[in-house]
Amino acid sequence: MANQADNYTKIILPESEMPTQWYNLIPDLPTPPPPPLHPGTHEPIGPDDLAPLFPMAIIMQEVSQDSYIDIPGEVLDVYRLWRPSPLFRARRLEKLLDTPAKIFYKYEGVSPAGSHKPNTSVPQAYYNAQEGVTKLTTETGAGQWGSALSFAAAQYGIECEVWQVAASYRQKPYRKAMMEVWGATVHPSPSEVTEYGRGLLAEDPDHPGSLGIAISEAVMMAVEDPNTRYALGSVLNHVLMHQTIIGEEALKQLAMVGETPDVLVGCTGGGSNFGGLSFPFLREKLAGRMNPTIRCVEPAACPTLTKGEYRYDFGDTAGLTPLVKMHTLGHSFIPDPIHAGGLRYHGMAPLVSHIYEEGLVEAISIPQMECFDAAIKFARTEGIVPAPEPTHAIAATIREALACKESGEEKVILTALCGHGHFDMAAYDHYLSGEMVDYDLADTKIAEAMATVPNLD
Amino acid sequence: MANQADNYTKIILPESEMPTQWYNLIPDLPTPPPPPLHPGTHEPIGPDDLAPLFPMAIIMQEVSQDSYIDIPGEVLDVYRLWRPSPLFRARRLEKLLDTPAKIFYKYEGVSPAGSHKPNTSVPQAYYNAQEGVTKLTTETGAGQWGSALSFAAAQYGIECEVWQVAASYRQKPYRKAMMEVWGATVHPSPSEVTEYGRGLLAEDPDHPGSLGIAISEAVMMAVEDPNTRYALGSVLNHVLMHQTIIGEEALKQLAMVGETPDVLVGCTGGGSNFGGLSFPFLREKLAGRMNPTIRCVEPAACPTLTKGEYRYDFGDTAGLTPLVKMHTLGHSFIPDPIHAGGLRYHGMAPLVSHIYEEGLVEAISIPQMECFDAAIKFARTEGIVPAPEPTHAIAATIREALACKESGEEKVILTALCGHGHFDMAAYDHYLSGEMVDYDLADTKIAEAMATVPNLD
Repeated sequence: MANQADNYTKIILPESEMPTQWYNLIPDLPTPPPPPLHPGTHEPIGPDDLAPLFPMAIIMQEVSQDSYIDIPGEVLDVYRLWRPSPLFRARRLEKLLDTPAKIFYKYEGVSPAGSHKPNTSVPQAYYNAQEGVTKLTTETGAGQWGSALSFAAAQYGIECEVWQVAASYRQKPYRKAMMEVWGATVHPSPSEVTEYGRGLLAEDPDHPGSLGIAISEAVMMAVEDPNTRYALGSVLNHVLMHQTIIGEEALKQLAMVGETPDVLVGCTGGGSNFGGLSFPFLREKLAGRMNPTIRCVEPAACPTLTKGEYRYDFGDTAGLTPLVKMHTLGHSFIPDPIHAGGLRYHGMAPLVSHIYEEGLVEAISIPQMECFDAAIKFARTEGIVPAPEPTHAIAATIREALACKESGEEKVILTALCGHGHFDMAAYDHYLSGEMVDYDLADTKIAEAMATVPNLD
Repeated sequence: MANQADNYTKIILPESEMPTQWYNLIPDLPTPPPPPLHPGTHEPIGPDDLAPLFPMAIIMQEVSQDSYIDIPGEVLDVYRLWRPSPLFRARRLEKLLDTPAKIFYKYEGVSPAGSHKPNTSVPQAYYNAQEGVTKLTTETGAGQWGSALSFAAAQYGIECEVWQVAASYRQKPYRKAMMEVWGATVHPSPSEVTEYGRGLLAEDPDHPGSLGIAISEAVMMAVEDPNTRYALGSVLNHVLMHQTIIGEEALKQLAMVGETPDVLVGCTGGGSNFGGLSFPFLREKLAGRMNPTIRCVEPAACPTLTKGEYRYDFGDTAGLTPLVKMHTLGHSFIPDPIHAGGLRYHGMAPLVSHIYEEGLVEAISIPQMECFDAAIKFARTEGIVPAPEPTHAIAATIREALACKESGEEKVILTALCGHGHFDMAAYDHYLSGEMVDYDLADTKIAEAMATVPNLD
């Protein structure tokens, strides 16, 4: 371990200390999560059902009962382009808040794509390449996931084809350019490439698209070609497992400075960033080695855990995917247009939903204006301009730190800054110009969407 | 020192090993650089002439004969938000090029502003705050320097007012938003704020502006108010000295893996990135402790060293600044609109010009198409999308690595990746769409601009 002065700002793990295994939470849980069901038969799905979409190594990880899975050397080689990522002590933010709390943040914006997403896009591209897959398809909304997969595909010499929600494709040409720099082909969705897309464009040549439509196009193109597979950036077990390298590193880094977290907060959209940070700490908690409060933070405009129901529902809007048991607002729920596009998902990862239902983690929701106010405070003290998604984690961290100021408690707070906001400056402009609003989410809107959820529970 | 595996990708210096002094090259040079002259009297200027623009601590650094200057603790505290910066071994790029050369790059894009500029904006803001200055003014073109100064001013609680070239202000609203996130006020230049700006807008309400005009507005506002000073992001001795922390760190990092550079290449605009990387290595060379070839890389569209003359000329277009002896294309030279905005400067830092004239460093120029081709190769192997300026350094590195492939030489090449390209994706889009061109720079264009240079030599 590197020697660490008392007034450290960053805690850097040497490359030689980088974790070499991902952690699988499932075997350590008191009860297993319910299985996904086939959309037609409503029976639990097996590996073969997923074979047209994913390579077998990924499918085996999805259903694995092993606590640890070795990270392949060729994946570690690419991880080393940015990992281990730094853990920061937010001394300048603490001073601004005048809090006795110690605030630590794990920063994932150091990856080439600027977020935590390459932690899973890299192994996904690797396993596909290993099994002879020559092309990956995926969807992207704001572009974080599409960028991460484009980067990863370039590392292993496979093609990447991305369907980007048309409205985002038009509004954010820079994300598209970034994907193209890494060699990907990017289509606006709906596209002329699929019959489904052509049908939608015939109805409306200016169709804005949606994530659900983009998923459908990417999935359709993958199943059509035996050398093509599909890749998903969140929600599934294997994705969350790949992200656990975040928490494993953070555990080591906190140990380097002799700290143990009292409170852990992470923003939750599909759940992969939260799971990646928290699962290794939850393992420690379940084993009685520490006892942190672990808190999900979701946007008030899309409060799946705090206002959704724990039900079997579809993962996509069109209802093509397996049914998974999760906290959902209903698969037809369309969240208001908050800037944190990565948190605008109607459901929550089944694994995060399960541990929330089991009472192992808490959840709160925060409206976006408070999040951007927190982000400005953060940027002016810590320097980094956060992506809109982790502004939710920062806002929750500031709430906790100010509570410590009231109570005088010297809590250790850990959070994840899962990406930078360099491609989201329009959102900051919107906030600083005074044009941003908070949305009122009516209970009737949730009830309407929930009415479309199949009744299997 | 951290232990370092043989297959390392990044070489990370612990915070405790971060340099605590800047290096001043001047006392170690065989001959001193010629002094700047007063634009009116043509006599060497003294510290008092600069007092309306800069705080005394900065002026003393500008003329210092000390080899080392201590970095204040309050500056080190802010540096630690991103420093020490990583040194990468470009193993994946080496493999693509199939070269026996070892390529190392020092990456400065990890700073909050995304470039090397905060290395000097932070101490400049600090010294101004120490001397009671409450506001800093500056100009910015593409926005890198304006961002860096906005960030630095926020760290010490002083105001920052930026004049951004109007064409850039309109084309790149995201840079403006970034400066505002850090609390700066940003004006398009020409602006309604100064009499000079109002005059230009009266002639042309859609005036595109220029760096020269923006400098004039920022300087005018600084001299008008006793509590306001001006800050410059390159060219001057103290700016280059602040950047030497790059090279000092790189020296330590190469020592950690037992390497010594044979070739050192850096892109040169005003000269601060190049000086920052190379001056500590030039010290070692002058002392006979190593013997690297040190090479400046400039854009073919603005070849100050390779096609300019070593003459006394003005630093700005309007001819208001002191006269400095430098390689210049003439202060009225307007480079073609290449994307590397930070390299579009008619002159070169007097200190870099002097060592070039003394034969201590070499220079080459490269057209932008070759630079973007190199950048794509770099992004697809090393992951990071470079800013347009360091694509010149990457292109020169690739030339050298391919020469090693021909000759079989296992040279150690060191370069600086001085910033990321997250705000420059339009340039990549321009390149990938096939619309980018190389410009033919006619000798007559240089001759015309040189005709306006005062005849003092």
